[in-house]
Amino acid sequence: MTKAVLLLECPDRKGLVAAIMNFLVAQYDANILHAGQHQDAEQGRFFMRVEFECATPEGQPLAAHFAKAFEPVASEFRMRWKLADSNARLRVCLFVSQHLHCLADLLQRHKAGELECEIPLVIGNHPDGEGLTNFYGIPFHTLAMSKGNKAAVEEEQMRLLREHNVDLVVLARYMQILSAEFVEQWKAKIINVHHSFLPAFVGSKPYHAAFARGVKLIGATSHYVTADLDEGPIIDQDVTRVTQGDTIPDLIRKGRDLERVVLSRAVRWQLEHRILHYDNKTVIFD
Amino acid sequence: MTKAVLLLECPDRKGLVAAIMNFLVAQYDANILHAGQHQDAEQGRFFMRVEFECATPEGQPLAAHFAKAFEPVASEFRMRWKLADSNARLRVCLFVSQHLHCLADLLQRHKAGELECEIPLVIGNHPDGEGLTNFYGIPFHTLAMSKGNKAAVEEEQMRLLREHNVDLVVLARYMQILSAEFVEQWKAKIINVHHSFLPAFVGSKPYHAAFARGVKLIGATSHYVTADLDEGPIIDQDVTRVTQGDTIPDLIRKGRDLERVVLSRAVRWQLEHRILHYDNKTVIFD
Amino acid sequence: MTKAVLLLECPDRKGLVAAIMNFLVAQYDANILHAGQHQDAEQGRFFMRVEFECATPEGQPLAAHFAKAFEPVASEFRMRWKLADSNARLRVCLFVSQHLHCLADLLQRHKAGELECEIPLVIGNHPDGEGLTNFYGIPFHTLAMSKGNKAAVEEEQMRLLREHNVDLVVLARYMQILSAEFVEQWKAKIINVHHSFLPAFVGSKPYHAAFARGVKLIGATSHYVTADLDEGPIIDQDVTRVTQGDTIPDLIRKGRDLERVVLSRAVRWQLEHRILHYDNKTVIFD
Amino acid sequence: MTKAVLLLECPDRKGLVAAIMNFLVAQYDANILHAGQHQDAEQGRFFMRVEFECATPEGQPLAAHFAKAFEPVASEFRMRWKLADSNARLRVCLFVSQHLHCLADLLQRHKAGELECEIPLVIGNHPDGEGLTNFYGIPFHTLAMSKGNKAAVEEEQMRLLREHNVDLVVLARYMQILSAEFVEQWKAKIINVHHSFLPAFVGSKPYHAAFARGVKLIGATSHYVTADLDEGPIIDQDVTRVTQGDTIPDLIRKGRDLERVVLSRAVRWQLEHRILHYDNKTVIFD
Repeated sequence: MTKAVLLLECPDRKGLVAAIMNFLVAQYDANILHAGQHQDAEQGRFFMRVEFECATPEGQPLAAHFAKAFEPVASEFRMRWKLADSNARLRVCLFVSQHLHCLADLLQRHKAGELECEIPLVIGNHPDGEGLTNFYGIPFHTLAMSKGNKAAVEEEQMRLLREHNVDLVVLARYMQILSAEFVEQWKAKIINVHHSFLPAFVGSKPYHAAFARGVKLIGATSHYVTADLDEGPIIDQDVTRVTQGDTIPDLIRKGRDLERVVLSRAVRWQLEHRILHYDNKTVIFD
Repeated sequence: MTKAVLLLECPDRKGLVAAIMNFLVAQYDANILHAGQHQDAEQGRFFMRVEFECATPEGQPLAAHFAKAFEPVASEFRMRWKLADSNARLRVCLFVSQHLHCLADLLQRHKAGELECEIPLVIGNHPDGEGLTNFYGIPFHTLAMSKGNKAAVEEEQMRLLREHNVDLVVLARYMQILSAEFVEQWKAKIINVHHSFLPAFVGSKPYHAAFARGVKLIGATSHYVTADLDEGPIIDQDVTRVTQGDTIPDLIRKGRDLERVVLSRAVRWQLEHRILHYDNKTVIFD
Repeated sequence: MTKAVLLLECPDRKGLVAAIMNFLVAQYDANILHAGQHQDAEQGRFFMRVEFECATPEGQPLAAHFAKAFEPVASEFRMRWKLADSNARLRVCLFVSQHLHCLADLLQRHKAGELECEIPLVIGNHPDGEGLTNFYGIPFHTLAMSKGNKAAVEEEQMRLLREHNVDLVVLARYMQILSAEFVEQWKAKIINVHHSFLPAFVGSKPYHAAFARGVKLIGATSHYVTADLDEGPIIDQDVTRVTQGDTIPDLIRKGRDLERVVLSRAVRWQLEHRILHYDNKTVIFD
Repeated sequence: MTKAVLLLECPDRKGLVAAIMNFLVAQYDANILHAGQHQDAEQGRFFMRVEFECATPEGQPLAAHFAKAFEPVASEFRMRWKLADSNARLRVCLFVSQHLHCLADLLQRHKAGELECEIPLVIGNHPDGEGLTNFYGIPFHTLAMSKGNKAAVEEEQMRLLREHNVDLVVLARYMQILSAEFVEQWKAKIINVHHSFLPAFVGSKPYHAAFARGVKLIGATSHYVTADLDEGPIIDQDVTRVTQGDTIPDLIRKGRDLERVVLSRAVRWQLEHRILHYDNKTVIFD
C-alpha cells in the first residue's frame, strides 16, 4: 500500500471534484483518508488537497504512474498539481545565525517525532549552533559572511543544498538577506519567520519602536521568502499580550516564544503538504 | 436557481465522495460552492457538508425532488442525511430570564444581518427582556415559573413553539432547567451556553469557586441541550485570562463577554447548517 | 466616607511612594483600596494610581480640600496629577454613524451596570442610531455632515458637549474625521476604535486588502484621538484568527466583535481612571 | 549596591504601605525599582512585592541586616515575609522521565539567559534525558523507580537536593507521584505542569477522553505540588483551540506546546520572586 497527498489548483468548474474522485477510485481503487477544498469565489479558482491510500501500481512507484495516468484529467481542467508520497520524508536544511531558540526548538521537535523529515545538514553564518546541531547527530557547516564574499557563500550554500538533495530551506533566525537569485531558485521552498507588530514598524530595532509606541500586542509571522523582503505569502501568525511592565528584553523574549510556534507550525504544514500558495497568499489545509 | 446545504453521515467507504458528487452533477448539474468532509478514523465514520447551487427541478421544490432522487444513494451507503434550503431562513425562539446580555447581543446581530433567521417570538420566565425584544419588533411572552406550574409552563412553551413553526430554541441565559420530556422532543434543537472553568467547579456559585481557587482562565461553552444537564455535545468554547486583581464581579463580566461570543457563534453555525453531532460530540464545518 | 482615585506622574525619585502614602494617611487617615505603580526606567518617570477611601473633610468636598492640601507634595516632586471622585460618574457622549454594533454594545453594558457613567446624549451624523438610543431613554441628535458644513456641525457638536457637561467623547464607529481644532480642545478625552492588521494596510478598504494579502489574524485597536489620524496613544488591542475560508463579510463580522471588546474595555478603563498617557503611549492600571 | 526583592503578606491595615516605604527609605535610603500590591478584600489580607536597590549595609550582607532591622515593622503588622537577594541565583533541580520537551525547553532558555538560576543537576527515573542534559554541561542522575524502591529513591533524591543546596524542584514531565513526605518537606518549592481540559477529565488517558468528548479547547496548568495530586495552587494556565480534524497525537502535540509555555513561565516567575501563595491560590506580581 502507498499513501500519497495530491495538491492541486485550477479554475473552478462544475464536475471538478467528481472527476478527481472518480479518477482516484477508478484508476487506483483509492481509499480517501482526508480531503479538503477551498474556493476563491472572486477569482473563480479551486484548490484541493486529497490524502489517499492505494495499492502500489505494478512495477513502478506511484508518482511515475500517476503522472501519466492523471495527465488527461489535469489537462482538461487546466490544473497545476503535485503528488507527494507520504512515506517519502522531505529533506530539510536549517539556516541559523547566533540566536538558537528556533534551531533548538526545531531539532527537539524533529527528535521527538513531531516533524517527519530528514535534516541532513544545518548551515550557519556563525558557529554558535554547531554544538547543539552535532548533539543531535547532524553535520553543521559554518559559512561566515564578510564584506564581499556573499556571492561566494551563497554559491557554496546552494552547492550543499544540491549535494544533499534538500527540498526545503528553513531560516531559523538566519540574519542575512538572501539574494534575489537564491530566492528565485528556491521559490516557495524557503520558509522564514519575523516579528510583526500593530502598527507595523520598519527599521532595524522593531522591539524598541514597539516599546516606544506602547503597543499592547506583539506578534510573529512565518512566510515563504520572496524577493520582497518579509513580504512573501504568510503561512502563520500569532500574537501575545504585552503591558507597560514589559521591558524591551521581555518583548524580545515573548517574541521568541511566538517565533518558535509560528515557524515550527509552518514547517510541519509544509512537510505534510498542507500549503498551497497563489498570488501572494497561502491556502492552509488543516 | 436554488441554493442548498447537504449534511450527511455514514460509515466510511470507498467511492463515497465520488458517488455524492456524481449524483449532484448528473442529477442537478449542480455547482459546488463549498464542501467539507471529516472522517472519524477510529469509528470508521464519514461526515460531509456540501453547499451547492442548481436549477430548481421543474414543478417542485428541490427538497421534495431530492428526497426521492437521493434515496438510492443514501440507502446504498446507509446515510443519515438532511437537505436544507439555504434560502429558507430557520425560525428561532430565544428563551431568556433576567440577564439580558446574550439577548441584546443576538437581537442586535440579527438586526445587523449577521444571523440569517426569523425570530418570531421571545419567551421569558421574567418580563425583563420584553422592552428590548419589542424594540426590535418581536413579540415577547412572559411565562413565569412558580412552584408546581413547571409542567404547565413547558406545555405552553411547546404550544407556542409549534404555533410559530420554530426550528431552533436558543437559551440566552435562561435560568430554568428544561424537563427531560421537553429536551427529548427538541433533540439537537436547543442550544445553551454555560460557564466553564479549569478545573471544573460544580454547584450554584461557580464564579465564587473559581475565585477561591485562583484560576488564571475562565471560559464559556455553548452546547446542545440533552437530558444530562450541561453535558450535551459541545459546539464552541472560549476562554479569557483573569488575575488576582479581578473581583468576582469582574469574573462575571468577563464571563458574559465569552457567553455572548460562544453562543452567537453556535447559533450562526446552526443557522448555516455547519454542525453535525454524533455520540456526544460535534463536527463543525467552517 | 468618600472614595477617590489619585492618578499622578512625575520624575522618579527616592521617597516618592512613602511621601504620597504618608500624606494620604496623615492628612485623611485614608484606607488604601488599590494602588498600582509603574516606572519608565529609561526616561526616569514614575506613574501611580491610588484608590482610597476616607472621611469627607468637614465642610467641603474632598476634591477642593485635596487640591490645596496636596499642593506642597505635588510641587516638591513636580507631579502632574488628577484626583477623581469615585462616586462622581463621568458624563459620556457617544458619536455614531450607520454601523450600530458598538453603540448597541455600549448602551447594553451601560444599562447592565458595567459602565458606571451618565450618557446624557448620543450624536449621529446619520439618524440610524436614534431608535436604539431612545429605547434606552437617551436623547439622540442627528447632525448630518454635508459638503461644506463640517465646521458648523462641529461647532454645534461642541456646543452640545458643553451644554451637557460632557467629560468624554466615544467614537462608536463614527465615520467622520474630527478637525484638528476639535481634537485639540478635547485632548485625551476622545476614544476611538479602528481595525488593525499584520501587516498594516492603508487606504479605504483595509478588509479587502487584508483578504487579498491572506492574513491569518485580524485585529482592532482602541486609542485616544490625536491630530494624527488613528495614531494616538493605544489603549487596548485584540486580534482573532482568520482562515482562507473567511470571506470579506466574515472578516468584517469578526472585526466588529473585536471592536466591541476593545472599545468597551477602553471606555471602562477611562471611567475607572485607569489610564495615564504620556508621549504617545498609555499606562493601564488594572 | 545591592538589589533585593521583598515579598510579604499580612492582614490589611491602614498605614501599611507608608510604613514599609518609610522603613526602606529611612533605613536603607532605598531606590524602589518596582512595587506591586494586592488586596484580598474579602479576607482583609494584603500582599506586596517590592524590588529595591540600596547600598550594602557595612560589614554584612543585606539579608542578615534586614532580618533584624525589619523585625519591629514585621511584628507590628503581623507579616509573613521573605527577602531575596536579586543577585543570588536560585539553585534549581529538574526532574524528568521520558518525554523531553519541557527539559529541552528549560535547558535552552537557561542557556539563552532567560532563566536566571543555577541548575546543578537533573534527576531522571529514566536515562533518556541524560545526553541532552550533559550537552548543556549539567550532571544527570538516573534513579530508576521499581516496585518497592520508591522510599529509597526519594531518600536519595532528597540527599542530592540537600547536597547541591537546591532551592526549587521543577517536575519537567516527571511521571512519578511524589510521596506526601517529600511534598511536605518541599512545600511550595516544587513546580509541576499538567494538562487541563474543559470539562475536566480524570483517569490515565485524558487526551483520549477529551477527544471522545469533542472538546474545542485543550489546556495546561502549572502549579505548586501539594499532597493533593495536581490540586496545588495554580501558577499559570493556557489553552489552545482544537477541532475535529485533530487526532489524539495532534492533541498531545498541542498539549506539549502549552506545557512548555506554562511551565517555563512559572519557573521564571518563581526565580524572580513574583509568586505569593496563600490558601490554595497564588498572587502573581508581573
